[in-house]
Amino acid sequence: MNGYIHLYTGNGKGKTTAALGLALRAAGAGKKVFIGQFVKGMHYSELDALKRFSEITVKQYGRKCFIENEPVKEDIEAARKGLSDLAQLIPSDDYDMIIMDEVCIALYYKLFTVKELINVINNRTQNLEIILTGRYAPDELYEIADLVSEMKEIKHYYNKGIQARKGIEY
Amino acid sequence: MNGYIHLYTGNGKGKTTAALGLALRAAGAGKKVFIGQFVKGMHYSELDALKRFSEITVKQYGRKCFIENEPVKEDIEAARKGLSDLAQLIPSDDYDMIIMDEVCIALYYKLFTVKELINVINNRTQNLEIILTGRYAPDELYEIADLVSEMKEIKHYYNKGIQARKGIEY
Repeated sequence: MNGYIHLYTGNGKGKTTAALGLALRAAGAGKKVFIGQFVKGMHYSELDALKRFSEITVKQYGRKCFIENEPVKEDIEAARKGLSDLAQLIPSDDYDMIIMDEVCIALYYKLFTVKELINVINNRTQNLEIILTGRYAPDELYEIADLVSEMKEIKHYYNKGIQARKGIEY
Repeated sequence: MNGYIHLYTGNGKGKTTAALGLALRAAGAGKKVFIGQFVKGMHYSELDALKRFSEITVKQYGRKCFIENEPVKEDIEAARKGLSDLAQLIPSDDYDMIIMDEVCIALYYKLFTVKELINVINNRTQNLEIILTGRYAPDELYEIADLVSEMKEIKHYYNKGIQARKGIEY
């Protein structure tokens, strides 16, 4: 079975959760999954749920808060550590699926370049499924992806002043 | 905390998986989740994965194959059983999140009406989060939803002749 590259982008809710759902489905089928979360170092409820899966490994490559305006040195270091880990994992046969959550945000903040990312992705084994998420995906990722879904925000309760809620947004 | 209504629709991949990811996150936060899958009675790998969660209950309200052209009697009966179960569950305090997966497809095939569905949803308790998925969502669901994300297919490997794969699509 060949592996493909998925890209979930756009400004609507559902990108990271779609990747998590894919991880769940893959683990249910006995596949091994690596989830690298870029830009995020906060605690998310899904991390607790994912601990129940020996098939799923999660690593975070971000600080405990989102980037405001400009990335700081720690943001760049964390993201580059992620890219370096993935450069090791992607050519290996250790995983059947690798999720690079919010990798488009890492690109948007220029924590590394799209060329560096594509070089890493290009070293994948034939069977590896790669999932890329995050808004602001650059054209180059649309080109290399085999599947692109854009999540488009039509309505969001944030616009009514609702705050992010534990168990729903994090 | 108030609960809201989410609608994940559109023709792109990521609707059911986004709902599964939400279920995972909610369970990680200790919430109780009910997933009713309309139109689907096939075996999906996520069902095996979800068995590890005592917080998550899944029921299927469909046959072992998709509807072709016209629904048969069993499709209608299965979907109406689902609506009837939800009419019981939604006003109760048994769950914190109720996912009605592919409910828009049930409406599209007229297995029940949008008015019947909205009547059931309107009996929800204040804290219940309701997640609706499926393409072809009718305008009435856009109106009642607090959050709408449209998954738009930009590219799909099905169009290259790739078949659905275990652990990725099912």
